[in-house]
Amino acid sequence: MHSLEKILRPKSIVLIGVSRKEGSLGKKFLDAILRMNYRGEIYIINPKADQINGIPCFASLAALPQTPDLGVILLPSQFVLDSLKELGEAGVKDVIVVSAGFKEVGGEGLEREKQLVKLAQKYDMNLVGPNCMGIFNTDPEVMFNGTFSPTLPRAGHVAYISQSGALGVAILELAAQTDLGFSVFVSTGNKAVISEHDILQFLKNDTNTNVITLYLESIDNPQPFMEACQSIVTRKPVLAVKAGKTDSGQRAASSHTGALANPEHIVNGFLKQAGVIRCETLEEMFDLARALSLQHLPKGPRVAIVTNAGGPGILASDALESCGLQLAELQPSTIERLKDILPPEAACANPVDMIASADHDTYHDVLEVVLKDPQVDSVVLIIVKPPVDTTPAKIVERLEGVVSNCAKTIIPVLMAQRDETAGLELFSRLHMPIFSYPETAVKVLGKMWDYQQLQQRFFKSEATTRPATLHTEQLQKKSGQQLPVKDLLQLLAEYKIPVADFRLSENWDELETFFKAAKGPVVLKIANEQIIHKTEEGFVRLGLNSLPDFKTAFEQMSQKAQDVLPHHVHPLFLVQKQLNKGLELVLGGKRDPLFGPVLMVGLGGIFVEVLKDVAFRIAPVNVYEAQEMLNELRGQKLMKGFRNIPPLDFFKFGKLIHYFSLLLAEHPEIAEIDLNPLIWGAGMEEPVAVDFRATFAD
Amino acid sequence: MHSLEKILRPKSIVLIGVSRKEGSLGKKFLDAILRMNYRGEIYIINPKADQINGIPCFASLAALPQTPDLGVILLPSQFVLDSLKELGEAGVKDVIVVSAGFKEVGGEGLEREKQLVKLAQKYDMNLVGPNCMGIFNTDPEVMFNGTFSPTLPRAGHVAYISQSGALGVAILELAAQTDLGFSVFVSTGNKAVISEHDILQFLKNDTNTNVITLYLESIDNPQPFMEACQSIVTRKPVLAVKAGKTDSGQRAASSHTGALANPEHIVNGFLKQAGVIRCETLEEMFDLARALSLQHLPKGPRVAIVTNAGGPGILASDALESCGLQLAELQPSTIERLKDILPPEAACANPVDMIASADHDTYHDVLEVVLKDPQVDSVVLIIVKPPVDTTPAKIVERLEGVVSNCAKTIIPVLMAQRDETAGLELFSRLHMPIFSYPETAVKVLGKMWDYQQLQQRFFKSEATTRPATLHTEQLQKKSGQQLPVKDLLQLLAEYKIPVADFRLSENWDELETFFKAAKGPVVLKIANEQIIHKTEEGFVRLGLNSLPDFKTAFEQMSQKAQDVLPHHVHPLFLVQKQLNKGLELVLGGKRDPLFGPVLMVGLGGIFVEVLKDVAFRIAPVNVYEAQEMLNELRGQKLMKGFRNIPPLDFFKFGKLIHYFSLLLAEHPEIAEIDLNPLIWGAGMEEPVAVDFRATFAD
Repeated sequence: MHSLEKILRPKSIVLIGVSRKEGSLGKKFLDAILRMNYRGEIYIINPKADQINGIPCFASLAALPQTPDLGVILLPSQFVLDSLKELGEAGVKDVIVVSAGFKEVGGEGLEREKQLVKLAQKYDMNLVGPNCMGIFNTDPEVMFNGTFSPTLPRAGHVAYISQSGALGVAILELAAQTDLGFSVFVSTGNKAVISEHDILQFLKNDTNTNVITLYLESIDNPQPFMEACQSIVTRKPVLAVKAGKTDSGQRAASSHTGALANPEHIVNGFLKQAGVIRCETLEEMFDLARALSLQHLPKGPRVAIVTNAGGPGILASDALESCGLQLAELQPSTIERLKDILPPEAACANPVDMIASADHDTYHDVLEVVLKDPQVDSVVLIIVKPPVDTTPAKIVERLEGVVSNCAKTIIPVLMAQRDETAGLELFSRLHMPIFSYPETAVKVLGKMWDYQQLQQRFFKSEATTRPATLHTEQLQKKSGQQLPVKDLLQLLAEYKIPVADFRLSENWDELETFFKAAKGPVVLKIANEQIIHKTEEGFVRLGLNSLPDFKTAFEQMSQKAQDVLPHHVHPLFLVQKQLNKGLELVLGGKRDPLFGPVLMVGLGGIFVEVLKDVAFRIAPVNVYEAQEMLNELRGQKLMKGFRNIPPLDFFKFGKLIHYFSLLLAEHPEIAEIDLNPLIWGAGMEEPVAVDFRATFAD
Repeated sequence: MHSLEKILRPKSIVLIGVSRKEGSLGKKFLDAILRMNYRGEIYIINPKADQINGIPCFASLAALPQTPDLGVILLPSQFVLDSLKELGEAGVKDVIVVSAGFKEVGGEGLEREKQLVKLAQKYDMNLVGPNCMGIFNTDPEVMFNGTFSPTLPRAGHVAYISQSGALGVAILELAAQTDLGFSVFVSTGNKAVISEHDILQFLKNDTNTNVITLYLESIDNPQPFMEACQSIVTRKPVLAVKAGKTDSGQRAASSHTGALANPEHIVNGFLKQAGVIRCETLEEMFDLARALSLQHLPKGPRVAIVTNAGGPGILASDALESCGLQLAELQPSTIERLKDILPPEAACANPVDMIASADHDTYHDVLEVVLKDPQVDSVVLIIVKPPVDTTPAKIVERLEGVVSNCAKTIIPVLMAQRDETAGLELFSRLHMPIFSYPETAVKVLGKMWDYQQLQQRFFKSEATTRPATLHTEQLQKKSGQQLPVKDLLQLLAEYKIPVADFRLSENWDELETFFKAAKGPVVLKIANEQIIHKTEEGFVRLGLNSLPDFKTAFEQMSQKAQDVLPHHVHPLFLVQKQLNKGLELVLGGKRDPLFGPVLMVGLGGIFVEVLKDVAFRIAPVNVYEAQEMLNELRGQKLMKGFRNIPPLDFFKFGKLIHYFSLLLAEHPEIAEIDLNPLIWGAGMEEPVAVDFRATFAD
């Protein structure tokens, strides 16, 4: 696929489906373009008119003075395919199809969309849509408003890709009341040809965009989407709201887009792995986008709060902890300097409560001192409409010198009406995103710090060597669906997954030798893959302590197995040292039809069975990602040392998970694999798998 | 204390501390009163002027033509006490002290506040403040703006009590941009005399107030506060933001108010018990207050979503589940009727996506049909700025007939700029609170439904009979801090707390008889209260299975005990049936210096030790409250049947908790008591305490 340059920065466009009729779709589209002062050439194909609103009309594409960069089709659906073909013949390789009446209506629409895709492939076209609201680009060199939006978007540096056209327009409307400015907007529509990842690849290098926001109803191409995100994250943040989280939402989403539902547990891990900052609500996403596009990233978690009223200062302090931030400990010299500036009733430790008498000079002097403190990474600056003779506008004017030379993060909270004295534009000019409530400001700051850490992680190259013994050839499916224990044990060994001491044998003498060396209880199991429900059928015996008990169990099981197994097959036994005491962990893998190899990590027992306390990613994961999975578990406290169980080394276990994820990713012939449980306890080097099973894919 | 009528609905006021000087505190206060057109008489005490802004001035209180209802002191702190005395002598019994310089500044301020309280007591005065921002009342019969607020509050039915004066003013400023209207505002300041509960008692009967909001930094009088809230909850909702939740917040709050920090785990349970709807942020509180003051409460959890765009409908559906709501299942007849109204591309099942072509008539017709469906309790009505020839204003005008005759809840979401076409005032007139984002609307609706359920609960009278055997006389503290096992066992028996089968005896024969009857392992413990660390010193033996083992344990323990106990004291033994298998539960009680008897319930083992998964309330609790505590536990799934453990009957266990809470509340001589663990398992009637201890208060 060629670059999206001509779609997103067209130098000339041709509109197909525009008439003179006021209120018609095409006419509205043209009006929107003209209202924004598009920098390029516009042509209209309309044999019945000479010009519309001063834009020249032509009878056909052949009559145009040049081949335009971009074609926009606004015709009723039944005329779209012919028009697309003509564009292709005329050499136009970039098209937006606004028209609806395709996949989303089912029936003949499905067929029409198939034909559309075929034509796009034939003519090597980039095609946005169909059934979309168009695109815009506010770059001063472009100024293309190819949407119906009656509201002119505020220019800025946030790109917005929306799978819902209406939500695109709605956000533009709502944003017009704030300091949120957009660079590029794309309504993806049915994503017949161009999908989110293509647009992401373009935005990665778009110098006018420094934050990317996404509204997603479905993830259709997980792999390229993840790759695109991961390659962007070190340059600019990618934020997303993913709809269809709950059953109700999924039902609503699939009836709306016709897309396959994305399982929420996978999506959540997937987006984290992609480096995407997932937001719970649209409001949260655009609040964060505003702040990220205007402000520096915080270099650390230490926040100073500067306020002219106590209450909001307390609320801001309260909000810090749950957002991963902390109240900065001001240096004694800072506090001394604040004492010189402020009246005796003021509080000079953090939060700095300048009290109601603070005017613009006080704000200036205090902020200057606080920003210089090396213990401070960012400042939440609270302005409650002051009773003294000053205004927010005067305050922000006075702050210019301090703020514009500062590389620390400053988030202002303006708890006052947005009237003319509030100086909104001034705040914006100084790159200060305004919030109305202290808790919102802190939440946003916390997410900015999260992104800073995320970025650092993606910068680090994770040297996680592969096990040397590794063979990656596929396993031969023998009989049945279960992987033979022998093969599975060998596979685990190749990927260095530790397994409780064992012996696999048909021979009593070997088993007896193992038992004598084991010094402690053992577990005896039948290992023939023909026997599936081992526990239920009495083919697992736990806690065998004495040799006579062990022998009896062996004999009983042999007898029973011979009744069940085919004649030529000998009973095969697995004897293992029984590990009773310790923390139970679980590692699992399952192949999802859309997302591929899904990796699961959790604590065993009630944590996985009742509390569903597990983390998911797409395999493979590196050691860092594996540790992040562990950090997501609510039960992780148990892994940090508890009763007689020593703390689990997250790096070591992370490496084990990394290897297990490689096993999963590199063996597509395996449909499902579980290590349940792995045991971690005193005197152990790393967790050890005590039970395991795997099944072949069909 | 007499009614707050004269403070909150004064017919005449006298201002002390007002001069002509523009920009002075007193002058600003007078200006604010005049701007709101106060309905009563105003007098000023100022011997140096005849009148200020047309308000007559008098040299002294004696010169006034009548005794005013309310005195407002605006003088510097050193003149306040004299002025208060004069008011008292003149028979003014209701006063607001705006002046600062009291407890909050420490030193001589503390003493000044003590004197202030004494004077108020002497003259039987209601006194708001000192160090406060005043009060207002927007009732058309009152119209008193006794604050400095330059912003005229919008009249409405939400009362706001704020422990931070600045946050009071800030909220008025922010609210002016929304449809939030206030009835009464009180800045409580130092709460020297009048505290939140006094104001709550007034607001309970204030017909102009239908929602009460609180900003709290400290709870100083838990008992009357809880009583006030509980008596209001069935009439109108009480919402609160409680600052000082985290360590950072508590430090900031206590340096600001000088109040004792309130432990967060207690506060959280306390507010639930009081029936207060706790909000996480100010924004959340006032969003909810808007909706509660304008709309009906939902009668059930079933929500219909009506929208002209798919995306926001999905987001609204997604938000339902986590808010305790569900997507209504529309009746087939409703869907049929919708099909007649809507074009074929529309979605007629819930969420009802009318698609972008919907105009005001469509909104009217669809809403009418949906509201009539008995499966629908409330409607989220989403309006994305329509591309067709209509406007939000036209839509809302058209809806009047449907909306005004409807007892169901309707929450509109307006995703469009708030310009003149948006019809904000029209929405407001139809009692429809506007939200910008679907997720916020759903969250608010969920909290409204929570309140509806809360109210139902408070209406129900919980007949929870007390145990018949109950004696409530105090226990005699004997020796040491520990309650003797004998006394504790008797106390538990009186309150019908089941304890694992036991025998308490000094006599081997009795113990032996118990052992023989027990059929299974027993636990043997020393029960003399002189021995405190029983486990550590070897005075607890578990799993005694055979009579010889039991006898040996008895003899060893006797020997050891005689070495430790005073000469005249015989070893006393407690033998209990050992209950090994089952779910571990924990019940505890501890006396807090401010909140009194704090009750704790949780799951035992890792849940209480590692995950801190416990719920708190103030004792006593009724059976319903006890069950609510269980429903708060994250581990509650384990109580609903798990492996071999049958589901726990929450009502039965709730009754046990209720009795335990009575024990705690009625025995103030007990400082701390723990039943840890109680065991619940197969074949049991109710959970049974297997270990217990209690200590006397000093």
